[in-house]
Order: sequence, then structure tokens, then C-alpha cells
Amino acid sequence: MTEDVKTPRSRRLPRAVRERQILDAAVEVFSRHGYHSASMDEISEVAGVSKPMIYSYLGAKEDLFAKCIRREAGRLLEAVRDGLRSELPPDMQLWHGLRSFYRFVAEYRDSWTVLHRQALTVGGRFADEITMLRSRAIEVVTALVVTAGMKKGLGDRAEFSGPALAVALVGAAESLADWWLDHSEVSDGVLASWLMNLVWLGFNDLIEGSVWRPEE
Amino acid sequence: MTEDVKTPRSRRLPRAVRERQILDAAVEVFSRHGYHSASMDEISEVAGVSKPMIYSYLGAKEDLFAKCIRREAGRLLEAVRDGLRSELPPDMQLWHGLRSFYRFVAEYRDSWTVLHRQALTVGGRFADEITMLRSRAIEVVTALVVTAGMKKGLGDRAEFSGPALAVALVGAAESLADWWLDHSEVSDGVLASWLMNLVWLGFNDLIEGSVWRPEE
Repeated sequence: MTEDVKTPRSRRLPRAVRERQILDAAVEVFSRHGYHSASMDEISEVAGVSKPMIYSYLGAKEDLFAKCIRREAGRLLEAVRDGLRSELPPDMQLWHGLRSFYRFVAEYRDSWTVLHRQALTVGGRFADEITMLRSRAIEVVTALVVTAGMKKGLGDRAEFSGPALAVALVGAAESLADWWLDHSEVSDGVLASWLMNLVWLGFNDLIEGSVWRPEE
Repeated sequence: MTEDVKTPRSRRLPRAVRERQILDAAVEVFSRHGYHSASMDEISEVAGVSKPMIYSYLGAKEDLFAKCIRREAGRLLEAVRDGLRSELPPDMQLWHGLRSFYRFVAEYRDSWTVLHRQALTVGGRFADEITMLRSRAIEVVTALVVTAGMKKGLGDRAEFSGPALAVALVGAAESLADWWLDHSEVSDGVLASWLMNLVWLGFNDLIEGSVWRPEE
């Protein structure tokens, strides 16, 4: 926030710019305090926008939080989708997708905190939004895994389930992103590479026909 | 709940038995409605124990929920630990740990729902309990992964991080358990086998010295 947005002159800014300022401030404040403890006063102060204007443009706290989640979820999906390159082999697609995901988390740490930690802990309609976001992410990964599996004729193998593998992979990626919030000394490239080594070498063996079975 | 616990004679039951009845009922009701919508009236009815007695034995709703989480978290950890057999090779240990985890989720579906879905959505001190539970699970898996890695002399390899792999694996296992709540046609053995195929064949390649690297 630059100083001049707090002066009376800033009242002349277009509505879209205002709304962006408010959402940016709200994501920052919700990330810091969580939904319940965050105050509209602080959001107003950080945004340099009066409370009545916030209510008029984006609604009360619940609406504002919902709009934050929707915007950040959209950004995250867009970032990951932009990272995928359908012309590459599936492992490279997954690698680029993971890189994009972790780059997003690094760059928009507040967004990720609001999406992953805050939205779930508030529950209700917000948790539903996150469930939708996860479903989309799982769809993207499933498409990738199933395409790769189908090429190798694995559609009917009992030890192969595209959707389940995608669910596991998305869970692993999220879990690692959460861990990363407290281990920021690790670079996003190293993080993505750890996960890639874990899951892809596994998957690669699967599509080459290896099967792990318990020794009874 | 059997009929006789609702009769006056049931007042003579020992306190420990009462507390177990109350906790069983509370887990069932919290799982069904979530923390905020669950009512002490319904818990009292399901338990066949009067509300004043619930308050006197286990406290108000918040305390009751905390005690549910603590009991179920302890049960889950115990079930997984019982499943591990330290004399077996690490892949078999992990296999048995996963089997125990999914068996627990199958048998105590309400417990898992309360632990994984409800506790997080309520947030605050409850989310902290879950964070502690996850940390314990991650410690168990890290010990297993690091031991296996150390034997192969992987301690210093950049692409190998025991704690990060454990975090990813626990996230994958949780995510799949959550997916399973809506796909109960899959058996617990098949579920554990999918995850084992995904993560172990990957890890197995890692400890044999294979490394996946992006082709630039």
C-alpha cells in the first residue's frame, strides 16, 4: 500500500482498483489473524479504504472472505494450468505443474494460508469452495495420470487407479506445501524435486509393469 | 446403545462406563452434524445419559469435543503403532502401518470424520490437537524412511529428505482416506495397496540410486 491511497484524492480511483486493494488487504489480514479474529477495522486500515466503502463494494466480512477465497483459488488454478504443457511427456507436465504450484505458494504465501489453513478452519460454505478447488486439481492430475496409464494399457489393472493416485498425489503436494510454510529455507525447486522423485519414480515403475506385493 | 441404559437402573453404572457411553455418543453426533450444529440434547439422548450428568462428568460442549478428539487420536495412533512390526523390512512395516490405518478408518468411520473433517473445521485448540497427531504420525513414518535411507547411505543426498518424504506420504494417506469416505466400495486392502504401489516403488527406486531429473 503506498501512502497516497490513504489521501482524500484516492477517492477518485476506479471501483475495480479499489476492490483489488480491499481484497489484497483482506487476504493479508485474514492470513495473519484467521477469519474469526480478523477485524474489518484492520482491513479498512491496511487497504486505505473506509469501512462503509468496503461494505458497499464487497459486502460484510463473510462475503469478503468468500470473495477472497474465490479470487485466490482462481489464481492458484490458473498458475498451475499455465505451468502444464500438454505437448510434453507426462512426467515433465507433472514436474512443471508442481513447480508452478510451489512457485505460487512461495509468491502468494498469504493466499495459500487463507486457502489451505483458514478456509478449512472456518468450515461451512468456505470449506465447500476448497473442496471444489481440490476437485479441479484432482481432475487435472487424473487426466494426466490416466492418459499416461492408458498409453501403457493399464486401464484394467487392479493395482492401478488413476483417480486414487491423483487424490494421493494432490494430498502429498498439499501436505508438503503446508510443511514448507515452516521450512522456508528449502527452495521451491528442491521441494518439487523431492515430490517428483517420490511419486514419479513410483509411478514410472508402475507403468513399466512392476508391482509391489506384500510378502506373506 | 441398548435400551436398558436409558432406565433408572442404569444410574448405578460405574463412572468410567458412563464416560465411555457419553464419548461414544458424542463422536457419533459430532460426526453426523459437525461441532457447531451438534446439540447436547442429542448427545444426551443417544448416550442415554442426562445432560447434567454429562456436564458433571465431561464438561460443556467444547470440553466434550476436546476429549473426543484426544481419545480418537490416541486410538488411531495406537492402532497404527500396533500394526508396525519393527522386525520386518521397511516396506513391509509401511504396508502393515497403512493397512492398520485404513482398517481403523473403516472400523471407526465416525472417529476419522471427527478427527479429520470436524476438528479442522472448528479450528483453534482442536486444530492444534490434530497438528500434534499429524506430527506423531510423521515422526513414525520419518523414522521408518530415514532408517531405510541411512542403510543405503542416502543421508546426504540432495534428492533425499526423510522428513519431507514422510510429510508427503502422510498427506497422501490422509487424502486417500478422505476420498474413501465417498468411495466405500473399495476395500481397505486395495486402498493400501494403491498407495503402497505409488509411494514404495518410488522410494524403492530412490534407495537403489535412481534419480528423476527434468529434461531441460
